[in-house]
Amino acid sequence: MSARQYAALPDPFAMYRGGVLRGARIAWESWGQLNQAKDNTILLFTGLSPSAHAAASPADPTPGWWDEILGPGLAIDTQRHFVVAVNSLGSCFGSTGPASTDPATGKAYRLDFPELAVEDIASGGYEVLRALGIERAHTVIGPSLGGMVVLAFAARHPGAARRLVSISGSLGSAPFAVALRSLQREAILADPAWQAGQYAPEAPPRTGLRLARKLGTITYRSAGEWDLRFGRERIPGAPHEANSFAPEFQVESYLEAQAEKFVTAFDANCYLYLSRAMDRFELEALPPHCVERALVIGVTTDILFPVTDQRRIAATLERSGAATELVEMPSIEGHDAFLVDIPRFSDAIGTFLRAS
Amino acid sequence: MSARQYAALPDPFAMYRGGVLRGARIAWESWGQLNQAKDNTILLFTGLSPSAHAAASPADPTPGWWDEILGPGLAIDTQRHFVVAVNSLGSCFGSTGPASTDPATGKAYRLDFPELAVEDIASGGYEVLRALGIERAHTVIGPSLGGMVVLAFAARHPGAARRLVSISGSLGSAPFAVALRSLQREAILADPAWQAGQYAPEAPPRTGLRLARKLGTITYRSAGEWDLRFGRERIPGAPHEANSFAPEFQVESYLEAQAEKFVTAFDANCYLYLSRAMDRFELEALPPHCVERALVIGVTTDILFPVTDQRRIAATLERSGAATELVEMPSIEGHDAFLVDIPRFSDAIGTFLRAS
Repeated sequence: MSARQYAALPDPFAMYRGGVLRGARIAWESWGQLNQAKDNTILLFTGLSPSAHAAASPADPTPGWWDEILGPGLAIDTQRHFVVAVNSLGSCFGSTGPASTDPATGKAYRLDFPELAVEDIASGGYEVLRALGIERAHTVIGPSLGGMVVLAFAARHPGAARRLVSISGSLGSAPFAVALRSLQREAILADPAWQAGQYAPEAPPRTGLRLARKLGTITYRSAGEWDLRFGRERIPGAPHEANSFAPEFQVESYLEAQAEKFVTAFDANCYLYLSRAMDRFELEALPPHCVERALVIGVTTDILFPVTDQRRIAATLERSGAATELVEMPSIEGHDAFLVDIPRFSDAIGTFLRAS
Repeated sequence: MSARQYAALPDPFAMYRGGVLRGARIAWESWGQLNQAKDNTILLFTGLSPSAHAAASPADPTPGWWDEILGPGLAIDTQRHFVVAVNSLGSCFGSTGPASTDPATGKAYRLDFPELAVEDIASGGYEVLRALGIERAHTVIGPSLGGMVVLAFAARHPGAARRLVSISGSLGSAPFAVALRSLQREAILADPAWQAGQYAPEAPPRTGLRLARKLGTITYRSAGEWDLRFGRERIPGAPHEANSFAPEFQVESYLEAQAEKFVTAFDANCYLYLSRAMDRFELEALPPHCVERALVIGVTTDILFPVTDQRRIAATLERSGAATELVEMPSIEGHDAFLVDIPRFSDAIGTFLRAS
């Protein structure tokens, strides 16, 4: 069962930094109903790795990645809003990306995919709105990479959303975040199975992807959360040998589980393109009045998209003329808090969406 | 030219968690003169990767890793003190470790080296004191891994040092630090060149060591320092291509340089043993009056050995009866601040050593 739908991109679709895509498409899912005025749409962009399946629905009752935020009566209230979540251009869950077939050759693009920019992902979402006949979204919202995308959306398509919610995003990543992503990519590139991007889909660079995901997982959370969650607890029955370097602590077992899930789900070349797009994203200013109101949420324990990034976003939105609210959340869960600290995020997002 | 000297360990040398070493030795260097009362010795343990060459000397004028702290008139004043730095047992700069020859087989130990504990490193340093006829050190001091070793030293050899300085150490690493070290080890284990530890010395697992070192470098510093130091500066002339994942930002170039230096210097199996020893180290309490006075230094921006670890160390020392001073430094350089924030560290260490 799938709730996935598709919107064709204009053909050709010009990429932000050069090159075109032919016959490209964006996968999306929706919840709630578009009202007659067509002014109740919430456009949702995702972080680097999720699909458009943000929440369960009758068409696809499997759990989504934001089930506790998005639904009837929840912060993103599907009784009031028509919510459209998109799979990022360049990703591998239905939208066109490096793992998709290049119609010009009949083979997967792999490294022949043109350069991907965060702006392209924004335009991909914009085209979904157009395909649905929606001129203006009520709100565009996104966490992490999505928090960058919504800013690119406002920059490239001013007026296409009245409100904006950027969660743990950035106008240009700090060198600490760039370094971590560089290392994640290097782990993939260094895996002999990567084969300069020419791996068979059934033989991906598992080792590289595992390392990349584990590093991601470490930096998506916070030391303080893990102190409470894992402490120095051992894996029951784990052998303690002189020369064993196998997982021995519970935290290692947790990383294992995260890595295993990811390796079977995500394409390595797509990961490389999306990761690089995040590094290269840089936005100095926003067009005047590109959105009317904005909410910027950051988490004080986020080491990847620190609150300093959030303050810059808020100041830049404010300068563009948007009535901007900045929330610095003291959540203990770090960058991933939007997935975990549901009470705080529900409160901030729900209050913002209702006040209109 | 080398200033390196060697002290034989008792033969056999019983390891803390089982197994023995035969014909083992510890490499050490010294500065200053032992006084007649033999009460002016400072015993210095290192972090995970340095050698005993902490400072330049007439016998080896090449730069040491703590040249600005250790020398005539400096914080660790070699005009007052006889300073002895040791290469950790299990390391590869002269002391016996997994890369050394096992006299029983005539071949390198590799993974047949017995389990290494932080306590063994401490006892290695203690045996150097004994070999030099020194009953009691004036002070035992160590940063990072060395900050753990000095605590193990106090626990295993109470009274063998009058004072203790633990810099950015721990009584038991937090899961965040364990996770990062686990990932560093996995990068080495996953490198096909590692060959289950049986690589030839001239063909080490370079890829794994590079990744491990880069990850270390990222976590040894702080995001704030890198904002100031690198910002979003690009490498001049770096190609900007759609599918290039080569280094493009200055921070990536810095990581490259760090990794290259390390790969040619450090043995992979030694790294694995030392890294695992750090994970497994756990000390609940210290013997009564094992030292008289203690200085515990932590850095507020350290994400690997956070100030919470330092507070626990200070409380544990205090409970043992040591007059303990805790300094939480606001240095921006993170875990590595002891190598960089020379004014603050000179002041704290110098003041402590002079007040006796």
